[in-house]
Amino acid sequence: MEVYFDNSATTKPIDEVIEAINYGMREFYGNPSSLHKMGIKCDRELLNCRERLANIINCTREEIYFTSGGSESNNMIIKGLTKSGNHIIISGFEHPSVLSTCKELEEHGVKVTYLDVDEFGQIDIEQLEESICKDTVLVSIMHVNNEIGAVQDLDKIGKLVKEKSKRAKFHVDAVQSFGKFKIDIKKSNIDALSVSAHKIHGPKGTGFCYIRKGLSLAPLVSGGGQEKGFRSGTENLPAVMGMVKAAEIIYKDIDDKFNRTLELKRYFINRLEDVKDIRINSPLNDNISPYILNVSFIGVRAEVLLHLLEEKDIYVSTGSACSSRHISTKGSHVLNAIGLSEKEITGAIRFSFSSFNTIEEVDYVIEVLKNSLTFLRRVKI
Amino acid sequence: MEVYFDNSATTKPIDEVIEAINYGMREFYGNPSSLHKMGIKCDRELLNCRERLANIINCTREEIYFTSGGSESNNMIIKGLTKSGNHIIISGFEHPSVLSTCKELEEHGVKVTYLDVDEFGQIDIEQLEESICKDTVLVSIMHVNNEIGAVQDLDKIGKLVKEKSKRAKFHVDAVQSFGKFKIDIKKSNIDALSVSAHKIHGPKGTGFCYIRKGLSLAPLVSGGGQEKGFRSGTENLPAVMGMVKAAEIIYKDIDDKFNRTLELKRYFINRLEDVKDIRINSPLNDNISPYILNVSFIGVRAEVLLHLLEEKDIYVSTGSACSSRHISTKGSHVLNAIGLSEKEITGAIRFSFSSFNTIEEVDYVIEVLKNSLTFLRRVKI
Repeated sequence: MEVYFDNSATTKPIDEVIEAINYGMREFYGNPSSLHKMGIKCDRELLNCRERLANIINCTREEIYFTSGGSESNNMIIKGLTKSGNHIIISGFEHPSVLSTCKELEEHGVKVTYLDVDEFGQIDIEQLEESICKDTVLVSIMHVNNEIGAVQDLDKIGKLVKEKSKRAKFHVDAVQSFGKFKIDIKKSNIDALSVSAHKIHGPKGTGFCYIRKGLSLAPLVSGGGQEKGFRSGTENLPAVMGMVKAAEIIYKDIDDKFNRTLELKRYFINRLEDVKDIRINSPLNDNISPYILNVSFIGVRAEVLLHLLEEKDIYVSTGSACSSRHISTKGSHVLNAIGLSEKEITGAIRFSFSSFNTIEEVDYVIEVLKNSLTFLRRVKI
Repeated sequence: MEVYFDNSATTKPIDEVIEAINYGMREFYGNPSSLHKMGIKCDRELLNCRERLANIINCTREEIYFTSGGSESNNMIIKGLTKSGNHIIISGFEHPSVLSTCKELEEHGVKVTYLDVDEFGQIDIEQLEESICKDTVLVSIMHVNNEIGAVQDLDKIGKLVKEKSKRAKFHVDAVQSFGKFKIDIKKSNIDALSVSAHKIHGPKGTGFCYIRKGLSLAPLVSGGGQEKGFRSGTENLPAVMGMVKAAEIIYKDIDDKFNRTLELKRYFINRLEDVKDIRINSPLNDNISPYILNVSFIGVRAEVLLHLLEEKDIYVSTGSACSSRHISTKGSHVLNAIGLSEKEITGAIRFSFSSFNTIEEVDYVIEVLKNSLTFLRRVKI
C-alpha cells in the first residue's frame, strides 16, 4: 500500500485537472495579449477563470491576479505594499516566503512586529491590537499554519485591523486553507490574499492573489503590463484552467470533505492512544485544521522515522517541505514558536491529509509506525 | 487553412512536450524539497533537467536556475545584480521586462545608459565601449529583438565587456533566440542569460536563467530557499520536464531548421515584391533573424490589416504581443528606435515563424494580404 500523507507539501494533480491543462495547451495556446481572435479567445477564457475563482472567495473578477504560486504571491503583496519607514505586523510562525520577505524588508528600513503565538498556534490578539500604529501599512497573517494547522480567526483579525487603522491593509496567506476552508473576502475584511494551486491537486507553478479593488502595489515582475501591470509575463492560461478546475472540484461538498477529514484525523489520534511517549502538536480543536496532524515521537529523530516510513511507501514530512532541505535551522521555527522542547521538535512528524485519504491508509500507517517505533526505541537511533 | 505566424508571441506546445508534462504530473508530482524518496526522485529529475539544459548552452548544471519565464528571469537578474549608485547599460529597444525594470531602478538611484541602435537594429559598439565606467555592474543586451529580429554579436559584446571592466556582468535576454540560434555561454563570455519555454513550443509559465557560478544575486522571490536561495517557491518540475523536452527537440537539426526558415523568409520577401508601398523592416541579412519578418504596409493601419488577416485564420502581430494590449505607446518603441517614420510604424506587421511553418502557408498569406491591401487601399481605412 502506498500512503501519501504529505499533502501540505504538495498534492497529486487529479485527472480532471490534467485534462483541463491539456485542453488548455491544445486549444488555448495563444497569447492572451495578442490582438487577433486567438488571443481574444484566450483573454476571454482568462476572464472566465478569474470570475470562477472570484465566486469562490466572494470578490470580483477584477480583483483576481495570476502569479506563479504562493511564494510569489506573498512576496509580491508584501514587497509591493511596503516602503522604507513603514511598519508591518506578522505572526512569528509565518511561512518562509513571508518571514524571509520581512527580514529583507527590515534591511531596507521597514519595521516588523512578530506576534507571539500560544501553544495551539493562536496569535495574541491583544498584542496585535497594541502593535497597530500610525505607520502600520500591513498586517499579514497566515490562515492555516503549514506545520501544525493552527487556524486563525480571520473575521476577528480583519475587524480589529479595520477598527484600529484606516491605513493598514490585511493580507492573508491562504496557501494551506484555500480548498479546505471557506474564505469570504468581504466578511473577513481581507485586502489581499495568496493562493497556490499545487496544494489543492492543481498544477505546480501557478497561483493567484486577490487584491482589493483600488489598492495599488509596486510590481515584483515588471514588463509587458499583464495583470493590470501588477505582474508582467505571458499569462499561463493552461495552468490557470487547471487551477480553476481543481478549485471548483475541491470546493464541491467542502463541508463533507472537511468532516470526513476530521473523522480521519480523530481516528488517527485515537489509534495513536496506545503509542507511548508522543505529543500531539495539533490536537482536535476548532482552531486547528483537520488536514494536519503533527506528532512528536519523543526520543526518536524524525528524519530516521521518516525514512523507515518511506521504506514502507508512506510519505510524510518533518516540518514543512520547503524548510526540510534548504534552510539550516535549529529545528522548526513553527514548533519553536509554540514552545515545544528540543526533544519534541527533534521527533516531530507532520502527517498532512487530503480528502482522498482513507481510514485504511491510517490503519496501515499506524501499524508501520508501531513497528518502526518499537525498532527505533529498542536500538535508540 | 489556418496559419500561425505569431510564433514570437507564443507557440503551440508540441505533442511530445504535452506528453512530458503529463508524465511529470502523474509520476513526478512530489515536492523536490521533501526528504522522502518521492521528493528525492523529483529532485534527481530536476537535476537531470538542469544537466540537459546546461549541455545545450555549454554551462554546468549548477548554473541553471528555474523561473516562471522570461519576464521573471529578466527582472530577477537585473534587479538582483543592481544596487543604488550602480550603472547599467542596455540597448534602447530591449523587451519591456528589461526596459521597465530599468525605469524602476532609475527611481532607486541606478544610472542607466540606453544604447542607440542603427536602422537594422545593431547596437552601437563604440557607444557601448565609451559607456562602460567604474560604476558599471551590468550590460544587458537582448540576443534577438522580438519585433524586428535584429541579432547582436554576443561574442563581440562579451569580449568588449570583459576587456573594459572586471566588474561589469554581461546579461543576455535570449528569449527570442534560444531554440533558434546556438548559444555558447563560455564562448560569448555571458554571465547571465534569460530563457522562456513557451517561445520554443514548450509550456507557458516556465523558463530558466543561467547564472555564472560564483555570481550572487538578491532574490526577487524569497522564501523556502529553493534554487539555492535565488528563487524560492516549489519547483514546477512537470513544466520543467516539458521545457527540457521542447529544448532538445528544437535544438535537434537546428541548422536545418534555421536554413529552412531562412528559405521561408526569403520566399516570403520575394513574393512581397509585387506588393506596392511596403518597407521590409527586417530584411535578409546576417544580423537579422530568419524567424521574424517585420513589414510596414504604408498607408494602412496595422490593426485593421491584422483583423482582415485573422478573418482568414491568419495570425500575426503588430509589434510584440505584450505591448499590443497593455501599454499605450506612441507606436512601437522598437520601430521608433530604428528610426522608422510614423507612417511606417502605423502600418507595421510582424510575421514570426517557427520551423513548423511551410511555403504553402506563405502562399496563402500572400494571397490574403494582396486582397486585403487592395480592399484597404481602395477604401482608405
